[in-house]
Amino acid sequence: MVSSNHENAKQSPASPKRQRGKIVGFALRLKELGKDDPRKIIHSFKVGLALTLVSLFYYFKPLYEGFGLAAMWAILTVVVVFEFSVGATLGKGLNRMLATLTAGALGIGAHRLATLSGETGEPILVALFVFIIAGIVTFLRFIPQIKARYDYGMLIFILTFCLISVSGYRDEEVIEMGFERLSTVVLGSCASVVVCTFICPVWIGVDLHNQIATNIEKLGIFLEGFGDEYFKISEDGQPINKSSSLQRYKTVLTSGSKEESMANLARWEPCHGKFRFRHPWNEYLKVGNVTRQCAFKIESLNNYLTSEIQSPPEVRNIIKGECTVISSECGKALKELASAIRKMIESSAAEPHISNSKAAAEKLKSVIRSSFSKHRDYLEIIQAGAVASLLFEVVKCTEEVADAAQKLASLAHFKNAKPRVTSEKQELSSQEAVKQVSGINAAHHVITINSSQSLPGSENSKRLDCRICRLCKKPLTWL
Amino acid sequence: MVSSNHENAKQSPASPKRQRGKIVGFALRLKELGKDDPRKIIHSFKVGLALTLVSLFYYFKPLYEGFGLAAMWAILTVVVVFEFSVGATLGKGLNRMLATLTAGALGIGAHRLATLSGETGEPILVALFVFIIAGIVTFLRFIPQIKARYDYGMLIFILTFCLISVSGYRDEEVIEMGFERLSTVVLGSCASVVVCTFICPVWIGVDLHNQIATNIEKLGIFLEGFGDEYFKISEDGQPINKSSSLQRYKTVLTSGSKEESMANLARWEPCHGKFRFRHPWNEYLKVGNVTRQCAFKIESLNNYLTSEIQSPPEVRNIIKGECTVISSECGKALKELASAIRKMIESSAAEPHISNSKAAAEKLKSVIRSSFSKHRDYLEIIQAGAVASLLFEVVKCTEEVADAAQKLASLAHFKNAKPRVTSEKQELSSQEAVKQVSGINAAHHVITINSSQSLPGSENSKRLDCRICRLCKKPLTWL
Repeated sequence: MVSSNHENAKQSPASPKRQRGKIVGFALRLKELGKDDPRKIIHSFKVGLALTLVSLFYYFKPLYEGFGLAAMWAILTVVVVFEFSVGATLGKGLNRMLATLTAGALGIGAHRLATLSGETGEPILVALFVFIIAGIVTFLRFIPQIKARYDYGMLIFILTFCLISVSGYRDEEVIEMGFERLSTVVLGSCASVVVCTFICPVWIGVDLHNQIATNIEKLGIFLEGFGDEYFKISEDGQPINKSSSLQRYKTVLTSGSKEESMANLARWEPCHGKFRFRHPWNEYLKVGNVTRQCAFKIESLNNYLTSEIQSPPEVRNIIKGECTVISSECGKALKELASAIRKMIESSAAEPHISNSKAAAEKLKSVIRSSFSKHRDYLEIIQAGAVASLLFEVVKCTEEVADAAQKLASLAHFKNAKPRVTSEKQELSSQEAVKQVSGINAAHHVITINSSQSLPGSENSKRLDCRICRLCKKPLTWL
Repeated sequence: MVSSNHENAKQSPASPKRQRGKIVGFALRLKELGKDDPRKIIHSFKVGLALTLVSLFYYFKPLYEGFGLAAMWAILTVVVVFEFSVGATLGKGLNRMLATLTAGALGIGAHRLATLSGETGEPILVALFVFIIAGIVTFLRFIPQIKARYDYGMLIFILTFCLISVSGYRDEEVIEMGFERLSTVVLGSCASVVVCTFICPVWIGVDLHNQIATNIEKLGIFLEGFGDEYFKISEDGQPINKSSSLQRYKTVLTSGSKEESMANLARWEPCHGKFRFRHPWNEYLKVGNVTRQCAFKIESLNNYLTSEIQSPPEVRNIIKGECTVISSECGKALKELASAIRKMIESSAAEPHISNSKAAAEKLKSVIRSSFSKHRDYLEIIQAGAVASLLFEVVKCTEEVADAAQKLASLAHFKNAKPRVTSEKQELSSQEAVKQVSGINAAHHVITINSSQSLPGSENSKRLDCRICRLCKKPLTWL
C-alpha cells in the first residue's frame, strides 16, 4: 500500500518532485541543443546584440526625433529579418528593402489617385486598390519560382502598399512617411546583415556543401560496414540487431526538401572563402539527388540485415568474399568522393575503388554462375541473389555519384589534387593492385606495387605504397 | 543570310516577339496554376477582402481616432497572419495574440523597472533587458517542439517586448499603447480567422487526410500495373519506357516533411465535418511512414522495369502468374485501404486481397523451388529472384499499411462499413474463391461462389457475385 501510494504521488502531475524533474530535463535538453551546435548559442547572442543596437538607436532622443515613430520599423525589421544564416538574412533584407521601395512608390501613386477623385470617391478607390493589389500579389506568391526566393518580398509588398495607400494623411505627409519607412527598413536590414555577416557568420552555402559531403559519407559508412554485418548473421544463423552507426544513412532518404531550400538561400550569399557568388548550387542538388537514389538502394539492402527469411549460411558463404569487396570498395569510393568534395579538390582517388568494385561484381557474377548450382533449394538462393543484385545496382549508383561529383568539381572550379607522391597510402585489393601495375586500370598513372602476395582470402585488401615520378611517369621507388 | 539574320533577331533578348512569348507563357502558367487548384484563386480573393475590410476600418476617421496610429497593426496583422489553410491562420493568430499579451505585460514591467532606476540607469537597463530576452527567446526557438508549433509566437514575443520596453513614453502612455496594440492585433487576427474560416475554408486536416489516402492509392496504382509492365518486357526482350501513370508514386518518397508540417497545422483546427478537435493526427503520420517504407520497396521494384540486366523471358515466364497476382492483389488491397480512409469507414475489404497475395506468395515460393532447377545459368535467375523477393517484402509492407490504417480507423472513430449485401462485385482468384466458400479466409461471412471453374492459368482472376443474408448468414442466391 505504501509503495503504491508512493507511486501515485510520484505520478501525480502536481508532484513537486516531478515538476523539478521536468525542469531539470528541460534544462538538460537546452544544454544538449547548445552542445550539438554551438552556433545556435552564438546566433542568440547576435540577435540580442543587433536588437540592443537598434533599440538604443531608437531610444536616444536626438535620433528618435529625427526618425519619429517610424523608427520602430527598424526594430521590427531586425526581429523579422535576422535569420540563422547569412543567406537567409541577406535574402530577407534585400526582399524587404526592395519591396518597401516599390510598394511605397506604388502606394504613394495610389494614394494620390484616390485623393484626386474627391471625398466620396477616395475610400472606394482605396478599397479597390487594396483589394486588387492584395489579391494579385497573393496569387503570384503561389508560383513556385517566386515562392522559393521572393515570397517574403511579396508579403512586404502587400503590407507596405496597404499601409501607405490607406494612411489618411495629406500627400506631402505620405511621401515623408514613405521615405521614413524606407530609411528605417534599410537601417534595420543593414544592421541585421552587418551583425549576421561580420560576427561568426553562418554561411548556408558552406552548410549545404558539408551536408552533401556528409550524406555521401554516411552511405559510404553503411556500405563499408554492410558486408561484415550481413555475413556476421550467417555465422550464428540469427539476424543481428542493426548497428546504430550503420543506420545514419536514414536521414539521407528524406533530406531532399531541406537541400533545396538551403540552395535557394545560398544563392543570396556573396563570395565567401572558396565559394564564389555564382557558385553552382544546382549541381549540389544534382549530387544530392543521385546520392538519395543510392540511399533508396541501401534502404533495400538494409532490410536484408533484419529480414526474417534469410538464405542459409552455406549459400551466403559462397558470395561472402565478393559481396564484401563490392560493398566495402563502393563504401571507400563514396568516402573518397565525400572527402574530395569537403576539401574542394578534384580528386580521382575514388576511381580505383570503383574499378575494384566493378571487377568484384564481374567475379561475383561468375561465382553465382558456377557455385549456385550445388544448391537444390532455389528459394534459399533468391535472398542472397537479391542482395547480390542490389549490390550490382549500388556499383552503378556509386559511379553516378562519382560522375555528378566530377561535374560539380569542374563547374565549381575545385582545385586539382596534387599527385600523391609521398607516403600517402591507398587501400586496394591485391588482385587489383597487380592489374594496376600492368596498366589496365591505371588511374592517372598511379603505379601500385603489391608489398605482399600472401593475403587472406575474403579480406584481400592491403595498404600499398604508391609512388610516381611526375615528369617521366615512371615509379619512383620499388618497395 | 536572310534566314540567319532572321534567326538572330528571334534569339535577341530584346526582341518584342520573344518578350510577348514570355508574357504569354507566364499568363498560361498562371492559368494552369489556378486550374490545378482553384482554391488558390479563392484564397487570393479572401486576402484581398480581409485587407479591404480592415483597411476601411482603419480609414474611416471615427475608428481611426479611436485606435490611433496603432490601428495600422490591424492591417499588418492581417497581412502576416492570413494563411492558405484555417489551421495555419488560426495557429498564427493565436500565437500572435498570446505573444502580444504576454510580451506586452512583460514589456510594461521592464519599462517600469527601467524608469525607476533614474535617467542614467534607464537606457542601460532597457538595453540589458532587450539583450537578455531576445537572446533567450531566440535560443528557445531552436527547440524542435517549440519550433513546430510556437515559432511565430516566439518571434512576436521578442518584437512586442522590444517595442513596448524601448518606447520612450511615460508609464501611463506605455500601458495605453500596450492595450491599443493588443486590441488591434486581436482585431486583425479575428478578421483573418473569420474570413479564412467562413468563406470557402481550406482545412489542412482534410488535405492531410486526403494526401495520406492518395499516397496509398498511388502505390496501389503502381502495384496493379507493375505485373503487366514487367512481364511486357519479356515478350519482346527489351525493357520498355516507364509508363508515366505508374511513376506517380515517386512523390510519396519525399512527402515526409510536408506531412509533418501539415499535421502540426491541423492540430490548431477546431472540429469540422467528420474531424474532431483532437483528431489523432499522429496516426496519420504513422500511416504515412509505413506507406513511405512501402514506397522505398516499390522504388527498388521500379528499377527492375528499366534495368539493363534482365532475366530472359523464359525465366520470367516461370514466375509471371504468381508475381502478377501478388502485385495486383497488393495493389487492390492498398487501393481498398485508400478508399476506406478517404471515405472514413472501417472496412475489411482489403483483407481478402491481402490473403490472396499471401497465398500467391506461398505458391510463388513453391514455383521457385520446383521450376528454377530447369535453368542452369544462375545469374539469369537472380534478377527474377530479386523481383520475387521484393514482392514478398511488398506483401509484408501492405499488411503493415493495413494494420496502421486499422489503428487509425479505430482511434479516429471511423464508421463501420455496411456489410456488402447487394450486387457488389469482388475480384478474387479462383483458388481463393474456393477457399473462401469453405470459410477459411472468409471476411465478414462473405460467401463467394465460383461462376466458372475453367479459368486461364496465369490470369486466374474472375469477377464473382457475393451475396449473403444479414440475419441467417447464409448465401442469398446461388448463381
